[in-house]
Amino acid sequence: MSLPAPNPTKQADGLTTMDLGAVLPQTAEVKDGHLHVGGVDMVKLARREGTALIVFDEADLRTRMTQYVEAFADCYPAPTHVAYASKAFLNKEVVRMANELGMSLDVSGGGEFACAQAVDFPVERVIVHGNNKTPQELEEAISAQVGCIVVDSSDELARISRLAGEMGVTQSVYLRVTPGVEADTHEYIRTGCEDSKFGFTMKDDIAFAAVRDALAAPNVRLTGLHCHIGSQIFALHSFREAVKVMVDFMARIKAELGYEIDELDLGGGLGIAYMSTDAPSTIREFAEMTCGSVKEACEEAGVKLPVLSVEPGRSLVANAGITLYTVGTLKHLEGIRNIAAIDGGMSDNIRPALYGSEYEAIIANKADQPRNAVYTLVGKHCESGDYVVADGSIQQPEVGDVACVFATGAYCTTMASTYNGNPRPAIVFVRDGQARVVTRRETYADLWARDL
Amino acid sequence: MSLPAPNPTKQADGLTTMDLGAVLPQTAEVKDGHLHVGGVDMVKLARREGTALIVFDEADLRTRMTQYVEAFADCYPAPTHVAYASKAFLNKEVVRMANELGMSLDVSGGGEFACAQAVDFPVERVIVHGNNKTPQELEEAISAQVGCIVVDSSDELARISRLAGEMGVTQSVYLRVTPGVEADTHEYIRTGCEDSKFGFTMKDDIAFAAVRDALAAPNVRLTGLHCHIGSQIFALHSFREAVKVMVDFMARIKAELGYEIDELDLGGGLGIAYMSTDAPSTIREFAEMTCGSVKEACEEAGVKLPVLSVEPGRSLVANAGITLYTVGTLKHLEGIRNIAAIDGGMSDNIRPALYGSEYEAIIANKADQPRNAVYTLVGKHCESGDYVVADGSIQQPEVGDVACVFATGAYCTTMASTYNGNPRPAIVFVRDGQARVVTRRETYADLWARDL
Repeated sequence: MSLPAPNPTKQADGLTTMDLGAVLPQTAEVKDGHLHVGGVDMVKLARREGTALIVFDEADLRTRMTQYVEAFADCYPAPTHVAYASKAFLNKEVVRMANELGMSLDVSGGGEFACAQAVDFPVERVIVHGNNKTPQELEEAISAQVGCIVVDSSDELARISRLAGEMGVTQSVYLRVTPGVEADTHEYIRTGCEDSKFGFTMKDDIAFAAVRDALAAPNVRLTGLHCHIGSQIFALHSFREAVKVMVDFMARIKAELGYEIDELDLGGGLGIAYMSTDAPSTIREFAEMTCGSVKEACEEAGVKLPVLSVEPGRSLVANAGITLYTVGTLKHLEGIRNIAAIDGGMSDNIRPALYGSEYEAIIANKADQPRNAVYTLVGKHCESGDYVVADGSIQQPEVGDVACVFATGAYCTTMASTYNGNPRPAIVFVRDGQARVVTRRETYADLWARDL
Repeated sequence: MSLPAPNPTKQADGLTTMDLGAVLPQTAEVKDGHLHVGGVDMVKLARREGTALIVFDEADLRTRMTQYVEAFADCYPAPTHVAYASKAFLNKEVVRMANELGMSLDVSGGGEFACAQAVDFPVERVIVHGNNKTPQELEEAISAQVGCIVVDSSDELARISRLAGEMGVTQSVYLRVTPGVEADTHEYIRTGCEDSKFGFTMKDDIAFAAVRDALAAPNVRLTGLHCHIGSQIFALHSFREAVKVMVDFMARIKAELGYEIDELDLGGGLGIAYMSTDAPSTIREFAEMTCGSVKEACEEAGVKLPVLSVEPGRSLVANAGITLYTVGTLKHLEGIRNIAAIDGGMSDNIRPALYGSEYEAIIANKADQPRNAVYTLVGKHCESGDYVVADGSIQQPEVGDVACVFATGAYCTTMASTYNGNPRPAIVFVRDGQARVVTRRETYADLWARDL
């Protein structure tokens, strides 16, 4: 693994902090040359709490959660559930907040469910995902009486049926179906062959056979169908295509098996602005498109409106989160690139190394200046390809500056490692001028506490 | 991220477990149809300790550590140090072992150093690496009087000099030099422009200027030069090229600055067998090549033989480690691939997703059978590209089987995450029929213990 190819002729974009628009947390502002979020000076916060530091704009989180819940309730005449996809970002505090704001919760591993249980999240609003839930995880979920388990395979259907039977209960399940529609950023692809580990393919009537099996399985009640067509989707019409396939499938189940599916879960996938040039749809537009598509497709197909669920993760939390680092060393590689090394990297954000993901960055203590320099922000790990921003525009960095990388709220802390013995950062929520640590920084002692 | 392109026409290789040769831990054997390592039945161990489970062959680890230390002592007339590169695999027990067997220790973050200190590893045998050591990490290292700090930048040289001055001590340092020789698997490349965040480039006399600065810096003693030309190297002659560049540089320093460099550290990089078709050099061959090259180059250049150090990581621990999983679900995607889902994945081994790394696998409870099936082993994470083996030969898997992935001893546990709330696996050392847990499995409670 190495850095992306250098671009030595790249010109800085000259943008100011506030030009980054939708990339920023909603309460971001520049005061006295410093970035402020939630009314808190990010430079002072970084110096007080230490770096690397993860900061969430609490008002932003709450606004988006509320917008999701309200938009779906407004746009759809039957009940709706907005389930927070906790794999994007999870700690006890965000689960408390999701609960308070009336959301459901999507968990995909026993540890995620344990977090929900630790803060008494109502189990009836928990949806359990995963392509290979272990027998132990299924037992934990069924015995806790979770709202729904999304069945991913025939092996699992049999296992749930058996376990629920042993416990003398009936478990509500969705079937995860691969609708053959896959969204990329701007278009959708109707895939002939679905190379996916998830769910039941429509092909060769495999999904249909699974419905039949689920209806026949004892101690299982098939309440819904689930699909998930991709991530970071900008092309909302992809959802319309998927809805049509799913609703037609519901119609076929009704016609051939005489069974009406009560619920439809469309998964997640709404894109967000990582870069200033990204123009994602709003939560409201997403709700209008999906709700409208379901109503239209149900009318056409002659099936009753299902309860509608969606599972946003990234689009709730990504832009609310930022990562603050301290610049430690600078290098000028003549004719290649400028390097600023920060005190974090692939341990707290593996997405650039893993996916080539791009991020916007600023120097938080020079937030009022235009981004007139081009730098690669590399991490502190013993790995050539350890970086967070490659050849990005930024204010001229100096050693000791506080660098801020935006839109790191999703899939950074949940995929974090302790590589090179690097303690995982603290997480701070900021709101109305107050900062509170909600997850404390890992200590050296924590790192080796499991060693005997 | 998605799975590697499927290969539906791939034929199984029909190899048996023991055909995997150098890929296997040294004490691997097949008895009663089960894989045994260190005299312990891996199937019974997996069922007793639970999966995913990391197992190390202790005799293998000890043999390789001893071979390294002895081979370098045998092949070189001046003192040698073999420093274990702890970033490859680190817990308290492996540090105790390295200490017992007379190794030095290479640490590259404060947390790695903390582990060494927790088991009283002699600080004078600790080498501190990192392209961006934080001021706190430098302070911890200098105040503990570590043997050596490898200086990676001018910013850092100044920082070490200042901190050592404040403490009234003199710190021994190496300078990390980029020799312009980069090894790939089978060849080396003489790089004109070095696009690397590490060290001082030879280009434009930057490294030479750094030597001059180091000699002038108060409270710093320049004892050695360091280089690292790559990882997973099969082409030993790459090391000869790098040695020549480094020794010529020592000769220039002597001629122009009148200063004799005492020590030369050639870093790590010896390749290992991940696949049965890999044919890496032995530790002995590596020692002969590097020691011979240094002797030859010093004679030619007219400089005294330096103390010689190497920093093996992967080649000490990768093959000694294996990962045991339980097969949870099976899927046949007609015309695409067969999928077996295991109870781990990118959280305990991110290398396939990150680098496209390949691994060999068997069904440990069918270890006496030929690998007659082709399966993709996917993980349990909510991520399309979560896999550990793509279209690999394996014995026909069934639900409940114990799958074993080989050569997972390096860069798996140290890069592990808790993605999807997945607790990190236990680590077990096996030897002479005995298994002992050296790192306990993470609990659900551990996962959220930092949340306030």
